This record gives sequence, structure tokens and C-alpha cells, in this order.
Amino acid sequence: MTTASCPLCAGPGGELLWQSALYRVVMVDEPGYPGFCRVILNRHAAEMTELPPEERNALMNAVWAIEEVLRETVQPDKINLASLGNVVPHLHWHVIPRWRDDPHFPAPIWAVPQREQIRRELDLNRLKALLASRLLMLESLK
Amino acid sequence: MTTASCPLCAGPGGELLWQSALYRVVMVDEPGYPGFCRVILNRHAAEMTELPPEERNALMNAVWAIEEVLRETVQPDKINLASLGNVVPHLHWHVIPRWRDDPHFPAPIWAVPQREQIRRELDLNRLKALLASRLLMLESLK
Repeated sequence: MTTASCPLCAGPGGELLWQSALYRVVMVDEPGYPGFCRVILNRHAAEMTELPPEERNALMNAVWAIEEVLRETVQPDKINLASLGNVVPHLHWHVIPRWRDDPHFPAPIWAVPQREQIRRELDLNRLKALLASRLLMLESLK
Repeated sequence: MTTASCPLCAGPGGELLWQSALYRVVMVDEPGYPGFCRVILNRHAAEMTELPPEERNALMNAVWAIEEVLRETVQPDKINLASLGNVVPHLHWHVIPRWRDDPHFPAPIWAVPQREQIRRELDLNRLKALLASRLLMLESLK
């Protein structure tokens, strides 16, 4: 099911890193947060408890895979996970690497920024390759 | 393991609704958000991927049970789920009922409030009883 007015039904919602039958993973272009990813349900649904348990688990397994890859590669001080959807009520999970010197820390990234972004040297190609490999592994485990 | 300086190691972190060997559920006293709950890991750990998969699943099953009960009882326009922990890096999940006329909607509750809270008539005793019953059911399914 798609909903005509929904931007996550109309387009990928970011740079596509991975796509399965159930969900896709996009890289979020948010200054100060390199590695920030979203896991987006392909079909239109608003809440996790609208999904059958096996689909909830598959989405969360993607979230955990991304969290692991971010911890290994960009080595954040903390990971933030959130499924909000107040503006776009189409299920998506934010997987956000946080650093003590990032623009909003320790507040959530939706609060008022407290400082300028720090430029981080990161190997985004390696991060993307590792993400794709882990998400492919999840598919093969099904 | 507990950490001396951690407030979620030192105390329950809210009105205790449920406690299992792995986690506890507390009611959050946040004006404008009746029904707001937190699922808090009993021991000290910062990230979901520090837990073995069965413990991750058990925590998420509690989150889904609370989401279902909130949807049935307080009938929010949206549910917000988040595990942030930048200030208190001890695993806890926020399960937040949102309404279009709540203080921050459609922004996350950590943004600047946009309006006064609306007084809601809710049967909190029924909500608490239903939550306890669903969480007890999860324990018996293990």
C-alpha cells in the first residue's frame, strides 16, 4: 500500500544503501552526523505494532546491524535510536551516531544546536561496504 | 553490574509499574504526556548491541506490549519510540503517546514546546492494570 501524499511512499528518502522486500536503508545527509542512517519500511504503515512480529524483528535486526557497523567504524560516544514519525507517519528508524562534541550533544538532535559541527575524517565508502555486507548477511539468515 | 554515578543504577527512575529479572517499566510523570512509559534495563549497559539477541528481543517485546496498551487505552495520534541515553548512558526506551494538540507536536518532545498542555481525562488505573497484565503475559511466554 502506498499513500499519495507520503514522501516515503513517493521516493527513497535518501541515498539508498540497501533494499530488501520489507525495508530499505538510506544514508542521511545531516551535517555533523556522518554515518546517520534510516531504516524505512517499504510499504506504508505508521506504528511498529501494526506489523506482524516477524516483520518487527526483521526491521530491528537491520537497526542492530547498522548500530554494530557504526560502533565499529565511526566509533561514536553513543548511538541514538528513534522511531517518531510525527511529521511523516510512515515507519522509519533513525540510527544516529553521537559524539560529545557534535552539534547537539547531550541533547537529542532535534533540540536547538549548541555548537558548530566538527569536521570528521571518516571512510564513508568502507562504512557503506560494511553495512551492505551485514545487511546482505541478514537476508541470507532468513 | 551497577555504576555508582548512574541514576538508573541508584534508583528505579520513576513510578514502578513492572519488574522482571532483565528490566523494569516505569510511568513517567511528564506534563502533557499521560501514559508515557520507560523500559529500563536493570543492569548497567549503554547500547542495545551490547546485549545478547534474546535480551534485545525481550526488551523490545516489552516496548511493543506498552505501545499496544497505549494505542488501546489513551488512543494517541502517534507513538514515539526512542533509546537515546546521551545524558544517562544506561539503556532505557521511551514509549511516548503523542497527540496533535500536545505541547510539542509534531516536533519530538525534546524540542521547544509550541503550546500549553491540554488536560486529558484518562483512566490511568485501567492503563496500569492492562500494562501489568500484558507484561506478566510476556513473562509467562518465555
